[in-house]
Amino acid sequence: MLPFRPPQIPAAFQGFLIGFQLGIDLGGSKLAIAIADAEGGLIAQQTRPSPLSGDPEADVLAIAEDAADLIARSDLAARDFDAAGFSVPGPVDHERGAVLAPPNLPGWQNVPLRDRMSERLGIPVRLENDANAAALAEWRFGAGRGAQNLAYLTMSTGVGTGLILDGRLYRGHRGRASEFGHTCVEWEGERCACGQRGCLEAYLGGAAWSRRLREIAPATSQVCALAGSRELVSPKHVVAAAGEGDAFACEEMERFNHYLARAIAALAFALAPEVVVLGTIATAAGEALCFEPVRARVETQVWPALRDELRILPIGLGEQLPYYAGVCVAREGSPG
Amino acid sequence: MLPFRPPQIPAAFQGFLIGFQLGIDLGGSKLAIAIADAEGGLIAQQTRPSPLSGDPEADVLAIAEDAADLIARSDLAARDFDAAGFSVPGPVDHERGAVLAPPNLPGWQNVPLRDRMSERLGIPVRLENDANAAALAEWRFGAGRGAQNLAYLTMSTGVGTGLILDGRLYRGHRGRASEFGHTCVEWEGERCACGQRGCLEAYLGGAAWSRRLREIAPATSQVCALAGSRELVSPKHVVAAAGEGDAFACEEMERFNHYLARAIAALAFALAPEVVVLGTIATAAGEALCFEPVRARVETQVWPALRDELRILPIGLGEQLPYYAGVCVAREGSPG
Repeated sequence: MLPFRPPQIPAAFQGFLIGFQLGIDLGGSKLAIAIADAEGGLIAQQTRPSPLSGDPEADVLAIAEDAADLIARSDLAARDFDAAGFSVPGPVDHERGAVLAPPNLPGWQNVPLRDRMSERLGIPVRLENDANAAALAEWRFGAGRGAQNLAYLTMSTGVGTGLILDGRLYRGHRGRASEFGHTCVEWEGERCACGQRGCLEAYLGGAAWSRRLREIAPATSQVCALAGSRELVSPKHVVAAAGEGDAFACEEMERFNHYLARAIAALAFALAPEVVVLGTIATAAGEALCFEPVRARVETQVWPALRDELRILPIGLGEQLPYYAGVCVAREGSPG
Repeated sequence: MLPFRPPQIPAAFQGFLIGFQLGIDLGGSKLAIAIADAEGGLIAQQTRPSPLSGDPEADVLAIAEDAADLIARSDLAARDFDAAGFSVPGPVDHERGAVLAPPNLPGWQNVPLRDRMSERLGIPVRLENDANAAALAEWRFGAGRGAQNLAYLTMSTGVGTGLILDGRLYRGHRGRASEFGHTCVEWEGERCACGQRGCLEAYLGGAAWSRRLREIAPATSQVCALAGSRELVSPKHVVAAAGEGDAFACEEMERFNHYLARAIAALAFALAPEVVVLGTIATAAGEALCFEPVRARVETQVWPALRDELRILPIGLGEQLPYYAGVCVAREGSPG
């Protein structure tokens, strides 16, 4: 029997698209799959709970079956696709096409996802971490359309960031760049899960912030009332309570905006982007609670020449972001 | 009379080189001119005091005459050149090919240097600011050869920085990126000449540091002895006195290294470069006074994955750097 050779994107087709793209966004809780045409228009999409069994081989099989189902239901076949794109949480080894060890995917350790999936699907597979994938999606189809230089920051469990520089995804040496979640925003500050002190993630990341909230949220605050109990408080309750004018929640949002502005100022001096897109909690908090105060703070910390044409925006794709994230990885993620 | 049309780099030749390159590095004190062959080998070079009269038109004429002299003495003519490159202090308007208002070039305000020089020389001209030019030079011919991602920091009057990302010069929106001299390294810290507080330049820039030294250097320190008087102390005296073990000078170098490491740590998380090249004072201070302590500090502030393959190096081109800076702008600076 011949050794397995994963399907390759024909050299002549690299760089422009003629067929369909399959996009897969695998998160710790949801699996989103979409099919897009050559222009990026979504022609089919589905979301279901992530099939995470603890056994990555079984998980890959389940995901491939889901994808194959969606392809069949769309009256398409593997040969109609240029590429499949996989957006995964956590770091990716681009050379090996492997997912390293995302804390959100139990049992996944060095999974050679690119080859396994392309073998199952019969379609060439590209991989990116989810923040890079979302940066591509917001740049091509969302808030950052038309920009040459864009930074995307998303505050979920941690803080994920992606950079589009000079009109392409920037990955840095061995794909390790764009860890703005670990920009120091307070010298000798809070201890971060990464081991360093004062990282942006130690203030804005959902895990760190939830831990803090569960320690200090006043039992009488609207934050605790919305959560049901202090042990269940999370950033989304802060956003909701701040929207109702709760004093504690408003102070917490101020702290959030304060540290976020420090990171954006550093970004502006370093990279002079035209657009900074802020996802998740920032997008949920909206203009009054987050974007206006953040822009005002950035304004005091950055030169006019750097801030006057800098747009700080919420995501533009809303609930569609995971679909476009996967599709954008198929379109221009790393082929390895 | 036909309007002047500056010579253009023939489209067919853009991206590869067949002829000679003229490199011009104009600083506040020195003018360096070099001629390089297609491989970047220097075949002629000269340095003289910058001909700065206060009248940019006269200055441009003097520089062009110098360049024409060197070309003639090398038995070459304008037609033998692919391009001329101009490295200038301060910001450049790439669209207009203009030098904005460098504090080191008296009288220069919005000078359309690209068109003026190409008109005089009969050679297409490219422009970059000096930190970008030096970053290109150290990347192509100096300490950073072979790297895909490199940051260059030079501590002169201010702090200039240049970025090579994904194998090309990164300029950001309107060429405004790479202002790492204004990375905040101390919240609410020293006032910088730029108006912000706590900028790297407010600690490491020669102007700011000299001002501090002239206020606080103990009259009994070796720093003052070397300078002749406290009013004349500058960073180079700190480097020299620290080399002799002077306590005050060693403390000042520690402070320098402390803030430099903070900026490099931020750079590493953001961009994951393979090489950080530190020019001027850092290169002069050398391994024991600067590079070893900076590396040790960066090590405590950055993840192993980001620092293990990060090389923090002095410049590799020494006194030749200005020649290569100009030549590299000719080779791959902005054609506008």
